[in-house]
Amino acid sequence: MNSSIIRYILGSVLKIEAALLLLPCLVAVCYQEKTGIYYLIVAALCLLFGLGMTFRKPKDMVYYLKEGCVTTALSWIFMSFFGALPFWFSREIPSLTDALFETVSGFTTTGASILADVEALSHTALFWRSFTHWIGGMGVLVFLLAIISLSGGSQMNLLRAESPGPSVGKLVPKMKHTARILYLIYFGMTVIEVILLLAGGMPLFDALTTSFGTAGTGGFGIKGDSIGGYSPYLQWVVTIFMIAFGVNFNFYYFILFHNVRKALHMEEVRCYLGVIAASVGILLVDTVKIYGSFSAALRHSAFQVGSIITTTGFSTVDFDLWSQTSKTVLVLLMFIGACAGSTGGGIKVSRFIILIKTVFKELNSYIHPRSVKKITYDDRPIEHEVMRTTNVYFITFVILFSASVLLVSLEGWDLTTNFTAVAATINNIGPGLELVGPSRNFGFFSPLSKYVLIFDMLAGRLELFPLLILFHPAIWTELYAHKSALRKLKKQKRQD
Amino acid sequence: MNSSIIRYILGSVLKIEAALLLLPCLVAVCYQEKTGIYYLIVAALCLLFGLGMTFRKPKDMVYYLKEGCVTTALSWIFMSFFGALPFWFSREIPSLTDALFETVSGFTTTGASILADVEALSHTALFWRSFTHWIGGMGVLVFLLAIISLSGGSQMNLLRAESPGPSVGKLVPKMKHTARILYLIYFGMTVIEVILLLAGGMPLFDALTTSFGTAGTGGFGIKGDSIGGYSPYLQWVVTIFMIAFGVNFNFYYFILFHNVRKALHMEEVRCYLGVIAASVGILLVDTVKIYGSFSAALRHSAFQVGSIITTTGFSTVDFDLWSQTSKTVLVLLMFIGACAGSTGGGIKVSRFIILIKTVFKELNSYIHPRSVKKITYDDRPIEHEVMRTTNVYFITFVILFSASVLLVSLEGWDLTTNFTAVAATINNIGPGLELVGPSRNFGFFSPLSKYVLIFDMLAGRLELFPLLILFHPAIWTELYAHKSALRKLKKQKRQD
Repeated sequence: MNSSIIRYILGSVLKIEAALLLLPCLVAVCYQEKTGIYYLIVAALCLLFGLGMTFRKPKDMVYYLKEGCVTTALSWIFMSFFGALPFWFSREIPSLTDALFETVSGFTTTGASILADVEALSHTALFWRSFTHWIGGMGVLVFLLAIISLSGGSQMNLLRAESPGPSVGKLVPKMKHTARILYLIYFGMTVIEVILLLAGGMPLFDALTTSFGTAGTGGFGIKGDSIGGYSPYLQWVVTIFMIAFGVNFNFYYFILFHNVRKALHMEEVRCYLGVIAASVGILLVDTVKIYGSFSAALRHSAFQVGSIITTTGFSTVDFDLWSQTSKTVLVLLMFIGACAGSTGGGIKVSRFIILIKTVFKELNSYIHPRSVKKITYDDRPIEHEVMRTTNVYFITFVILFSASVLLVSLEGWDLTTNFTAVAATINNIGPGLELVGPSRNFGFFSPLSKYVLIFDMLAGRLELFPLLILFHPAIWTELYAHKSALRKLKKQKRQD
Repeated sequence: MNSSIIRYILGSVLKIEAALLLLPCLVAVCYQEKTGIYYLIVAALCLLFGLGMTFRKPKDMVYYLKEGCVTTALSWIFMSFFGALPFWFSREIPSLTDALFETVSGFTTTGASILADVEALSHTALFWRSFTHWIGGMGVLVFLLAIISLSGGSQMNLLRAESPGPSVGKLVPKMKHTARILYLIYFGMTVIEVILLLAGGMPLFDALTTSFGTAGTGGFGIKGDSIGGYSPYLQWVVTIFMIAFGVNFNFYYFILFHNVRKALHMEEVRCYLGVIAASVGILLVDTVKIYGSFSAALRHSAFQVGSIITTTGFSTVDFDLWSQTSKTVLVLLMFIGACAGSTGGGIKVSRFIILIKTVFKELNSYIHPRSVKKITYDDRPIEHEVMRTTNVYFITFVILFSASVLLVSLEGWDLTTNFTAVAATINNIGPGLELVGPSRNFGFFSPLSKYVLIFDMLAGRLELFPLLILFHPAIWTELYAHKSALRKLKKQKRQD
């Protein structure tokens, strides 16, 4: 295990975080809030650690998948830890566990909050909280890849560990350019949303934070009623952008580079939009009775479906009050999630397409046992390895999910609360049902449950394995072996 | 598709059912109950249909996996339909849907009841109800294999479709002998349980019906409080036999034929007993507070764990009143289920062993990407095909489960009720939580939900695919094609 390069990348991530923390400082200056000082202190801390860790460039740049996973997992843990400090230092969130929960929820674009009264926070804190969504949405390592050149080693291993979906492809031959294109699309779409929200009369601060939450499919609101207080026009803008950020970014790349036909033929995007349409249809039957008018029912149904399937977690109404059928549809959508290669979470539409095709293939094999027809995806046969890892992913997900529900159940809340709390965190959504419904929060959980849910949020965002291998003893023995080997080498050099 | 042999086997199954229906007639004579006449009528009906369908022996005995699946699925549907008729004819269960639910629940060894007051039933009905568990436990096709010789074709295809577990092996080279040995062990163990129950002072009728329910891991009780009213000794006997019937029958075969070492090394059995011990331990912490004494807490915990993991569904207390942790443990046990090759349901311990080993292998592959270490099971490498089908089985299970919960949720009951109702039927357990808890019943569901749950019970007992392929259009077009080909052949012969 190459520990030097892990240290080096972690240092770079902290330097980026130091820079990003200057933005809330700016907000503090604008609103003349004294809490800004804590963000400045933490920025300085990040810079200090970052400089220390990147002082010596690693000689050995060889970089395998395991290094990629360990770096990704540790980056997210470091980032979350330092990101939580300003909340804790300023006493806006007095408990460190709670501050950590809130920050992990931000970076992982979950949007589950432990705060009972969001509106009591300072503008600075609200801004940082929403901004973590935007950072986490596309991923800070992707950002790192866009700005630095990691010579030698395979940079794909970093992208693979941080990007969602069953298989990761480069858009263009150079990794650096792929990362830049992704961030360009991301940035561009965010700007367009801000402009459209401003055009609808939303204040600049609200437009920025709401757009951050939408773009990262995060879901932290700055109001107690999330998006419920805004006009129907603004709610529609958010709906459309939530759904748009849940689309595989390859779709936009194809459109930008004049390959509209290929974009329109993407199986995952078609299926994703199909599921949305069907779900809105089912919810409409139910909500039209509640809200009287068809247009209001359509707006709330589309908003909630878009919010849950993209795992954003904004809400316009308390859907915990809807019928059991509607709630079951929403719970199922929680697991489906958005497209691979988007900023959304969940198991991902493409994985479900592969899983369902696997089941149909199995059924066919009972009838035509000697058939060797391959499963296709986007008109190409799926590689055996992709199918296998998709199956294993799903199985790991279910096992982790069950274990988490069991641990959370130690507290004694009802099954629906425990089940949807885990579902809402591991799929990076935010609100669940019952005690963790859209009008409630996660503050009442014990520290144990909070750490279980923090683990689930990270596991969900990093797609399980990068986080899970941190618990594999071999990783730590290898890291230790590498370090002591280096030390020996140094000693020998000195003696020579 | 060879439709003649399907017809022939279905006819044989009905003839067996006719014979089996004579037993409740005998009970009716003993207790001088007039309802016995309906059982006699249905027995005659079964015989009539059976004789008609087996009148002509099929010339073509070729028998593939698809024929095996279709035969198995249709056998169970036929058996359940005819088995439900006496309940309906006698008006003891006035609705045909309810009678069908109760009978499918019996044959599939689920034990979920629609009856509010079991004790109001006649002895004849109670006997038939429990006896269906005993028939369904080992499977009627296994019985058929034990008594008739299907010349030509692979008999394994019948056994494979009806027997639970990821891979089916013959105990001895001859199929017929394997089936006989299985039924011998089954019969012998049932007799021992009856004797031990009688020794504890249980009346003969109770001992017989309770043993049927235990042996088949069914769970229909003949009392309103299930096993709660019997003495601690009797409860312990039932506990031990429930757990014993959930063990892979290969274990008993090895012991009988002096291969004790091989028996004790069976990974699945060790794991199964380990899960039971751990679960009892967790539940003990909780129940000792409720029942005061350690011995009562141990008895109730062991009984409930044994009842749920073997998917029997008997109860001594209303575990819906236990703590959330205990209930979550029980819900997880519902899915694990018993050993493969036992009479129990659920996903099966061996499947979970394979699934968990798959996850660990994946984790290792991140650290040692070039390692080619194979997963072993019982000290032998697992065949790739077994791993693949286990994965697919699990995925299909989860998809079917989610679809069922969605359909049942149309009725508007709470999530826990819907979730555990589907879990309790698809895993062939019986009671769930909340509205379908041990002290309630399934009678309140609408006919739609009841048919969904009937489907789930059958799908769970037949391990999904044999039932699912009935819905594959190719099966029906092939059946039709075969029939018209036969007709053409006949016509041609006549013209010659």
